[in-house]
Amino acid sequence: MIVDCAVYEDGCRCAGDLPLAEAGEAAQRDGSFVWIGVFEPSEQEFDAVAREFDLHELAVEDAVNAHQRPKLEVYGDTLFVVLKTVRYVHDRHDVESGEIMLFVNRDFVVSVRHGESKLHDVRLQIERRPDLLRCGAGAVLYAVVDRVVDDYEPVVQAVEADIQDVEHEVFAPTRSNPAERIYTLEREVLDLHRAVTPLTPAIDKLARGHYELIDPELRTYFRDAHDHILRVNGRIEAFRDLLSSALQANLTQAAVRQNEDMRKISAWVAILAVPTGVAAIYGMNFDHMPELEWAYGYPLVLGLTAVICLMLYWRFRRSGWL
Amino acid sequence: MIVDCAVYEDGCRCAGDLPLAEAGEAAQRDGSFVWIGVFEPSEQEFDAVAREFDLHELAVEDAVNAHQRPKLEVYGDTLFVVLKTVRYVHDRHDVESGEIMLFVNRDFVVSVRHGESKLHDVRLQIERRPDLLRCGAGAVLYAVVDRVVDDYEPVVQAVEADIQDVEHEVFAPTRSNPAERIYTLEREVLDLHRAVTPLTPAIDKLARGHYELIDPELRTYFRDAHDHILRVNGRIEAFRDLLSSALQANLTQAAVRQNEDMRKISAWVAILAVPTGVAAIYGMNFDHMPELEWAYGYPLVLGLTAVICLMLYWRFRRSGWL
Amino acid sequence: MIVDCAVYEDGCRCAGDLPLAEAGEAAQRDGSFVWIGVFEPSEQEFDAVAREFDLHELAVEDAVNAHQRPKLEVYGDTLFVVLKTVRYVHDRHDVESGEIMLFVNRDFVVSVRHGESKLHDVRLQIERRPDLLRCGAGAVLYAVVDRVVDDYEPVVQAVEADIQDVEHEVFAPTRSNPAERIYTLEREVLDLHRAVTPLTPAIDKLARGHYELIDPELRTYFRDAHDHILRVNGRIEAFRDLLSSALQANLTQAAVRQNEDMRKISAWVAILAVPTGVAAIYGMNFDHMPELEWAYGYPLVLGLTAVICLMLYWRFRRSGWL
Amino acid sequence: MIVDCAVYEDGCRCAGDLPLAEAGEAAQRDGSFVWIGVFEPSEQEFDAVAREFDLHELAVEDAVNAHQRPKLEVYGDTLFVVLKTVRYVHDRHDVESGEIMLFVNRDFVVSVRHGESKLHDVRLQIERRPDLLRCGAGAVLYAVVDRVVDDYEPVVQAVEADIQDVEHEVFAPTRSNPAERIYTLEREVLDLHRAVTPLTPAIDKLARGHYELIDPELRTYFRDAHDHILRVNGRIEAFRDLLSSALQANLTQAAVRQNEDMRKISAWVAILAVPTGVAAIYGMNFDHMPELEWAYGYPLVLGLTAVICLMLYWRFRRSGWL
Amino acid sequence: MIVDCAVYEDGCRCAGDLPLAEAGEAAQRDGSFVWIGVFEPSEQEFDAVAREFDLHELAVEDAVNAHQRPKLEVYGDTLFVVLKTVRYVHDRHDVESGEIMLFVNRDFVVSVRHGESKLHDVRLQIERRPDLLRCGAGAVLYAVVDRVVDDYEPVVQAVEADIQDVEHEVFAPTRSNPAERIYTLEREVLDLHRAVTPLTPAIDKLARGHYELIDPELRTYFRDAHDHILRVNGRIEAFRDLLSSALQANLTQAAVRQNEDMRKISAWVAILAVPTGVAAIYGMNFDHMPELEWAYGYPLVLGLTAVICLMLYWRFRRSGWL
Repeated sequence: MIVDCAVYEDGCRCAGDLPLAEAGEAAQRDGSFVWIGVFEPSEQEFDAVAREFDLHELAVEDAVNAHQRPKLEVYGDTLFVVLKTVRYVHDRHDVESGEIMLFVNRDFVVSVRHGESKLHDVRLQIERRPDLLRCGAGAVLYAVVDRVVDDYEPVVQAVEADIQDVEHEVFAPTRSNPAERIYTLEREVLDLHRAVTPLTPAIDKLARGHYELIDPELRTYFRDAHDHILRVNGRIEAFRDLLSSALQANLTQAAVRQNEDMRKISAWVAILAVPTGVAAIYGMNFDHMPELEWAYGYPLVLGLTAVICLMLYWRFRRSGWL
Repeated sequence: MIVDCAVYEDGCRCAGDLPLAEAGEAAQRDGSFVWIGVFEPSEQEFDAVAREFDLHELAVEDAVNAHQRPKLEVYGDTLFVVLKTVRYVHDRHDVESGEIMLFVNRDFVVSVRHGESKLHDVRLQIERRPDLLRCGAGAVLYAVVDRVVDDYEPVVQAVEADIQDVEHEVFAPTRSNPAERIYTLEREVLDLHRAVTPLTPAIDKLARGHYELIDPELRTYFRDAHDHILRVNGRIEAFRDLLSSALQANLTQAAVRQNEDMRKISAWVAILAVPTGVAAIYGMNFDHMPELEWAYGYPLVLGLTAVICLMLYWRFRRSGWL
Repeated sequence: MIVDCAVYEDGCRCAGDLPLAEAGEAAQRDGSFVWIGVFEPSEQEFDAVAREFDLHELAVEDAVNAHQRPKLEVYGDTLFVVLKTVRYVHDRHDVESGEIMLFVNRDFVVSVRHGESKLHDVRLQIERRPDLLRCGAGAVLYAVVDRVVDDYEPVVQAVEADIQDVEHEVFAPTRSNPAERIYTLEREVLDLHRAVTPLTPAIDKLARGHYELIDPELRTYFRDAHDHILRVNGRIEAFRDLLSSALQANLTQAAVRQNEDMRKISAWVAILAVPTGVAAIYGMNFDHMPELEWAYGYPLVLGLTAVICLMLYWRFRRSGWL
Repeated sequence: MIVDCAVYEDGCRCAGDLPLAEAGEAAQRDGSFVWIGVFEPSEQEFDAVAREFDLHELAVEDAVNAHQRPKLEVYGDTLFVVLKTVRYVHDRHDVESGEIMLFVNRDFVVSVRHGESKLHDVRLQIERRPDLLRCGAGAVLYAVVDRVVDDYEPVVQAVEADIQDVEHEVFAPTRSNPAERIYTLEREVLDLHRAVTPLTPAIDKLARGHYELIDPELRTYFRDAHDHILRVNGRIEAFRDLLSSALQANLTQAAVRQNEDMRKISAWVAILAVPTGVAAIYGMNFDHMPELEWAYGYPLVLGLTAVICLMLYWRFRRSGWL
Repeated sequence: MIVDCAVYEDGCRCAGDLPLAEAGEAAQRDGSFVWIGVFEPSEQEFDAVAREFDLHELAVEDAVNAHQRPKLEVYGDTLFVVLKTVRYVHDRHDVESGEIMLFVNRDFVVSVRHGESKLHDVRLQIERRPDLLRCGAGAVLYAVVDRVVDDYEPVVQAVEADIQDVEHEVFAPTRSNPAERIYTLEREVLDLHRAVTPLTPAIDKLARGHYELIDPELRTYFRDAHDHILRVNGRIEAFRDLLSSALQANLTQAAVRQNEDMRKISAWVAILAVPTGVAAIYGMNFDHMPELEWAYGYPLVLGLTAVICLMLYWRFRRSGWL
C-alpha cells in the first residue's frame, strides 16, 4: 500500500500528492527527488513501484519479505538499506520488532515499512529541515536512520529496568526463583543484539563517505547516529554479561537458601527428638526405675524436657540456624 | 556415477545428453560450457572425468572422499568449491549433512554430490534463467550456492523449534531433566556452525569479485547469498548462547526443585513426629500420671494430636512448604 | 554557568577575566587561545557559547545532555572530546561518574563539566607549565585527559580493595554469602569498563599524530596518557575474570558448607537415635525379659547407652563430621 | 644419531649412503640437494651437522632441545620449521607428542626427530614422486608437513571417540561421575590445540608463496595441507566447547540424581514412620483404651498398618519417588 | 643507587669503573657506549642520571615509580623499555614480581632495577659475547630481555606443578575443598598474564626491525626471544582454561560427595529405624499379643531384628550406598 508519495525540490516538498505513474518522471528532474512511502506491500503492489524505478529483483524480494537482518547493499546507483525497528511492549515485558527498507538513489527514496513504526513523523520532521533536504535523498536516509536508532534508546532503558527488577528478585529474601525471567531477558537481549549490531558497520560506512550518493555535509550527521548506535550496542553487551552473572548468582542463592532451609529443618528435628528420646527412656519396663515411683517424677521429667528444648531453641537461634 | 551431462550455449541447454568423451571437446567451443553432474563417484569413475578436464590431483582426492570442510580453492584456472548441505530429519530430531563439490572453469562445471541433495532441481531452475546462464559457468555455481544456502533456513528453523521445545521443558512444572536434550542440541548446533561458518568468507570473495571467472553481473547475486548465510550464521551464534544459558538455567531448576522437595518432605516429617512424640510421653511408666487415669484421656490426647497435626499442615501450606 | 574564561598567550595566562562576548574576538589573535570553562550549562546558556565559537549543532546537543559515551570526533577544524570522570564514594562503596566535554580548536578550548570533577585544579596545574601551554590549545586537552586518566587509578585501587574484601568473605569460615556483593561489584566494573575502554583508541589517535591541531611535541605526553589508560584497562579486564571466578567459587563454598552442615546434622541424629532405640527395646512388653528384672538393669542400660553415644561422638569427631 | 643421508638429483635419490663430511660438498652441486635425517642428537653429534651446513646457533639450540612450540622461522637463506607430532596411545587413552625440526635450504634438508614418528616412511613415499622432488628441497618439507598433519586426523578421531564415550557416561543411568575423565580430556584437547594452532599460519605462509625457496608448484600442495590443518583445528575447537558443556551437564546430572536419591530415601522414611507412630500410640498407658482389650486388636492394628504402608508405597511409586 | 657504570668499546668492556659525571662524555665517543646500572633509585639520585643523558621527564617518572606495565616507547632517539621480572617463591607458593626499565640509545644504556633480579649476571654473560656487543647498545637490551624471558620459564613450570597438585586434590578421595587454592592460582596466573602479554608485541617490533637503533644482526636474536615469550604465553593461556575447568570440576566433586554422604547417612538411618520400629510394636499394650507370652519371644525378636539389619547392611553395601 502506497502511503505517501511526494516530490522534494530545493529542500521543500512540492504541494500535492503524486500518482505513482508520474513519480518516475518527476524523479528525473534535476535537483529534485521523489519519496514514496510503502506499507507492507504485496508482491503485486510492489512490482509496480519496482518497475517504475527499475529496482533490482533481489532487493525487491528482500523488501517484500520481512525478517531480514539489518544491512546496507549497493545495487548499481541505488543503496538498499534494511533497518530493524524495535518497540517495547510494556504489558507483556516484551520487545517487538519491525523493519524498514529503503531504496535510496539520487532521484528517489522508496521506503518500505513492515510492522509498527512511525515514518510519517519522520517525514514531517525532516520537512522542517530544508537545509538538510537540500543535500538530496541522503537526508531522508539520515532522518530514517536517526529515528530508528533513537527509538532503540527507550527500549534499552526498559530492558535495563527489567534487568534491575530481576536483580532485586534474585537477591530478595522472598525466595522466588527468577531463572525463567532471566532466561527470557537473555533471549530478548540476544534479539536486540541481532537487530542492532549488524547496523553498526553500515552506518559507519555512511559516515566515512564510502558512497558518493551521500552529501559530504551529511557525514557528520551519520557519524552522530553511529555514535548513538555504539552507545546502544555497548549497553546491550553489558546486559549480556550482567544476565549471565545473574543466572549464576541465582543458582548460588538457590543453593544458599537450600542450606538455610536444611539447617532450620534439622534444628526443629533435633528439638523434637528430645521429648521422644526422654519419653522412650521412661517408657522402659525395668522393675527398678526409682524415678518412676517419685510423686513428682512425671511433671519433673516433662518440665526438664521442656527446659532442654527451650535451651536448644535458644542456641540454634543464636547460631543462626533458626 | 554420471547423472547428467549437457552443453549450455548462449544461456540455453543444447538438446540431448552428451557422452563424457565428447564433453571435453564441446567445452572448448567459444561461449559455451559443459555441466557434468556426478553422484558419489568411485575413484575409477571420477578418474575419467578428471582426465577429460585435467583436474588437479589434490582436488580430485577431496572430491572423491566426502567429509571435507566447506572451502573455495583455486587450482590454476579452475575454482574448486566444497559446500556442506544439511537436512533436518524430523523423525530423529537430527541434522544430516552431505556435500557438494564443484569444479568451475570458463569451459565446464563438474558437480560432485555426496549424500542426499537435489541438484537436479537446481539444474531445472537455472535453465529457466537464460539471463543468468549467459554469464557463463559462474551462474551454475551461483545456482548451487544459492540452493545450498537457502536449504540452511528450514534446518535452522527446525533447530530453533527444538530449542524452544527444550526451553519449555526446562521451565515446565513437570520436573523433567532435559540436560541430555540440551547437550545433544549443542552438538547439532556446533555441527551446523562448522558447516556454515567457513563458507562465509568464500562467498564473500565471490561477491567482491576476487575471481575474474565470475561475471561482474553475478556479484550482486553472490552478495545476496552472502547476506543469507550471514543471517543463518547470526542465528546459529545466538543458538549457542541460548543453549549454554539453558543448561545453566536447567541446573538452577534442578536445585530449586530439590529445595522444594526437601521442604515438602521435612514438613511431612515434622507432622508425623507429633503423634509419635505425644504417644511416647503417654507411654512412660510413671506411677503418677493423672492423665492416664482420666476416663476420656485417650480420645482427648488423640484428638489434641490430630488438631496439632492439622494446624501444622495448615501453617506449612500457607508458607508454601506443602 | 561559565566558570572561568581566560586568554592564553605565549604560554601564559593574560591577566583578568574575559566577558564571553570578547572571547571570540580574542581567540582570533595569532598565537593565543581562549579557554572557557562551563559547568552543567542549560541549553540557553550554552547557546551563547556555541554561537560565539560557531560550534556544530550535534556536538552542542551532546555537550548539553550528559550520559554520553567517551569519544573523540572531528567537526570541521574542531575536535570534540567526551571524557568520563569517575569517583569512588567510600561511604557507599560505589563508583560515581561524571562527564567532561571539550571543544578544542586552534583558537579556543571550551570545556563543559557535568558532575563533580575539579577542572580548576587542572587549570592551575597547566598554567604552571608554560612550555606545554606554548604548544597551543592541545596542551589544555592533554592536561584534562591526563587528569581524568590519573583519576581512574584511585578508583581502580578502591575497587581492587573491595574485590579482595569480597574474596576474603568468600573463603572466610563465617559462612556469609557475598553473592550480592560480587554481583554489585561486577556491575561497577562493567560501568568502569564502559567509561574507560572507548577512550583508549581516541587517546591512541591523539598520540599517533592523527590531528594536526595537536603539536608534535605533545604526542609523547598523549602516549604517556595512553599507556596509563592501557594499564587501567588491563586491571579492569582482570577484575572481570576474578569476579566471575569468585562467583563460581562462592557457589562451591555454599555447596561444601551445605555438605558440612549435613554431615554435622546427621552425626547428631545418629547419636540421638541410640538412646531412643535402646529405650524402645526395653519398653517391649515381653513376659520374659531377664534384664528388666536385674536390680541394676536400669542404670546399666543408661550407662551403656551413654558410652555408645560418647564413642559415636568420638568417632564422628575424628572423621571430621563434627 | 644420523639415520639417513642421501643426495637427490633431478627428482631421484642418488645411489648409496653419504658420509656427513661429503654431504656439504654434494649439497653445493647445482640442481641437487642433500637430505640428512637425524634422531634425537646429542649436542656434540649435532654440532658436526651444524658446522657442515653453517646452521644458526639459535636454531641449533632449538633443534637439540625438544619441547618447542610449532613455528617457522627464517635464518638467512634457511627455513627452520618445528612441527609437533602426536600419537594416540590406546592403552592409556593418552596423547603422546614428539617433535620434528627441519632446516630447509636450496641445497639441503636437515630433519631432526624427537620422539616416535616415522620419517623413514615419508622418505620412501616422497622418493616415489620424482615430479615433486624435482621442485627441490621444498618437496621434502611438504612431504614431512603433509605426513605430520595427516597423522593428526586419527588422533582427533580417537579423542572424539573418547568424548562420545564420556558423553554416554554422563547421561548413562549408572550414576558414575566422569568429572575426572572430562577434565583429563580437556587437558589433552588443550595440548592438541597448542600443538596444532601455531602451525596454521606457518603453513598458510608456505602456501601463499612468502618464501621463494618454495617452488610455486608446491604452493597448491601446501594449501591442501593448510586446509587439512584447518579442519583438524575446527574439530579441536568444537571439542573444547563440547567438553565444557559436558562438565556442566555432568554437574546437572549429579544434582538431579541427588534429588532422586533424596526423594527415594524420604519415601522409605515416610513408610517406616507409619508402624512406629501407630505402635507408639498403642504403647500409651491410658487406663481406658478400648482397642487394647479387643480380642483381635493386635492383628487388626498390624494389618491396618501394613495396608497404610502398602498404599503409601503405591502412591510414591506412581508419583515417581520410588 | 648506581650499581655499575662501564664503557664498552668494540665489543669489550674498558677497564675500570667510571664516575657518572664522565659517563656522558664517554658515551659520545664513536663506536662505544656506556652501560649504567641503577638499583631502586630515589628521585634525586636518578635526576643526576637523567640530566647527564638528557632523558625525557615522562620516562624518568616511570623509571622512578615501580608498578608499570611492560612496554616499549620511543622518546626521540631513545628507546624506553619496561620489563616485568617474575620469581616463584617456593615457601609461599607465590609469584613475586619486579621491574627492569631500560633507556637504550646509540650512546648509552641506563638500566633501572626494582625488586630482586640479577642484572649483574646478565652483564657478565653478555661481556663474554664480544660478537654481540659489537652490535652496540641493542645487544645489552637483547641480553636483558633474553634473561627476563628465560626467567619466566621456571615460574611457569612451578605454577604448572601447583596446578597439577591442585588437580590431584580436586579428584582425590580425601574430600578436601581446594576452591581457595584454585582461586589463588587463578589470581597468580592473571598476574603472570599481565606481566607477559603486553611484552609480546614490543619484542615482535624489535625482531621485525622497527627501530634502526637495533642492529639487523640482533633481529634474529630478538625473534628467538619473541618465540620464547609466545611459548610462555601459550602455556599461561592454557592455565586459565584449566583452572576455570578445575573450579567447575571441583564444584561437581563437592556435589557428588554430598550425594555419597547423603546416601551413606540415609542407609544408616534406615538400618537404625528397624529395631526402633520393631521394639515399638512389641511395646504396644494390647491384652492379646501371643508373642509376648512366648518363652523365647524376646531373644527371637532381638535376633530377627539383628538379621534384618544385617541384610539391609549387606544390600546397601552391594548397591554402593555404604
